[in-house]
Amino acid sequence: MSRRVALVQFAPVLGDRAATEARLAPLLARAARAELVVLPELCATGYAFADRAEAEAGAEPVGDSRFLDFLAGRCAEHGFDVVTGFAERAGDRLYNSAVLVGPEGPVATYRKLHLFDREKELFTPGDLGVPVVERRGLKLAMLVCFDWAFPEVWRLAALGGADLVCHPANFVLAGYAQRAIPVHAQVNGYYVLNANRVGAERGLRFTGGSLAAGPRGEVLARAPAAGEAVEIVAIDPAQARDKRVTARNDLLADRRPECYRPLVES
Amino acid sequence: MSRRVALVQFAPVLGDRAATEARLAPLLARAARAELVVLPELCATGYAFADRAEAEAGAEPVGDSRFLDFLAGRCAEHGFDVVTGFAERAGDRLYNSAVLVGPEGPVATYRKLHLFDREKELFTPGDLGVPVVERRGLKLAMLVCFDWAFPEVWRLAALGGADLVCHPANFVLAGYAQRAIPVHAQVNGYYVLNANRVGAERGLRFTGGSLAAGPRGEVLARAPAAGEAVEIVAIDPAQARDKRVTARNDLLADRRPECYRPLVES
Repeated sequence: MSRRVALVQFAPVLGDRAATEARLAPLLARAARAELVVLPELCATGYAFADRAEAEAGAEPVGDSRFLDFLAGRCAEHGFDVVTGFAERAGDRLYNSAVLVGPEGPVATYRKLHLFDREKELFTPGDLGVPVVERRGLKLAMLVCFDWAFPEVWRLAALGGADLVCHPANFVLAGYAQRAIPVHAQVNGYYVLNANRVGAERGLRFTGGSLAAGPRGEVLARAPAAGEAVEIVAIDPAQARDKRVTARNDLLADRRPECYRPLVES
Repeated sequence: MSRRVALVQFAPVLGDRAATEARLAPLLARAARAELVVLPELCATGYAFADRAEAEAGAEPVGDSRFLDFLAGRCAEHGFDVVTGFAERAGDRLYNSAVLVGPEGPVATYRKLHLFDREKELFTPGDLGVPVVERRGLKLAMLVCFDWAFPEVWRLAALGGADLVCHPANFVLAGYAQRAIPVHAQVNGYYVLNANRVGAERGLRFTGGSLAAGPRGEVLARAPAAGEAVEIVAIDPAQARDKRVTARNDLLADRRPECYRPLVES
């Protein structure tokens, strides 16, 4: 059965949650036909924090977040779920997280495992693995931005049974990650929704080009390199669950895990 | 320091080693400027064996092979090493192998870990892992054809320190694997030499398009979909050994192996 999912490409307003929500509301309304909407990385806060104090000021706990409350309201209004990038505060730690939100509030959290550049000074590396969550009969995993460069986590999502990887991102190098994502989709046989941001912050320019990829590596939608975009695509979970390559081959069953041991040794 | 390596795309003659060698000799001569030459999968025999008996008839032990003797002779003549696909007989088993050959004879063997389609009826799955061999100061790994679909083995090659993955193949689906290979090169930060075959055997058509890719995912050379080709490219092992992405990021050092455990569980 075909399902409609969407990605939203836009520019959060650094340090101004209310302004970001005002930008986001009409874009989310445009995605109302979808059951699931993916937003960029660090969506509530922007990205280029001047320092740790600024990151802390914008971060919120998953269980007590005005931004996630805003999204839950939009979920209730439009009848969809949202995956958003989110600066998560947990005690005195900050995580660069992705949160699945429904009308009832936060449903599941992923904490970015592979931090990029200055993020290493601001955030704690993720400690929740790559959870796969079933929601409305669709199995979702979440990854964040620079995770794109690590085939291991894309495979973990497949082994967890994901039909779809939701991938909030803030790419700064044009084309590089965008070339890899369809191949991650292809070799794992699932869908990927990569929602990337645009605009610039403190000299850092974001490169847009959000994309949706399918289980044969096909590009289902590609947003432009600049400007807001809402891309709605149809996906079929049955296609992601069929890992056959030939009558004798299967993307997952043909793996040789007994030969892969060095992957988990330091 | 820049090094010259080559791939040869051609059509072995099914079941006729002498005819195959006659085709190969002038192609190898054209690659004489290279230090290393990569040939397609199952190069000595062809691919579409009618049955197990035909595969056995063409297969040879690595240590007692007229085809590998032929290649060692060409290595001595032209001053290079060769990686070739090879139907390997070992006792009563057959492996779909890749063999590194120098003027002195066979140097190292890889046995295909992920068998494709009917190969499962003819060959035993590989049991030698993904060895990385140092040769003339260049660190080489070998993979064979359908291994392309398994990010795990590309990563094992990187973890073993490979500068270059030699990838004999006989692709039958155009474009599919060829799109993935540059991404495997990119996320692992090394070179790949994919030597593919052309022609047809018993209704099976091979799709050529051999390619060389670099550590930024760049395509260094691409052979046409049909016809013989010799592609010589310059590679720089120093570029493959520098895994930095930013001043704070590294393709391998940023891995989180403690989080990857499900990759080695069945």
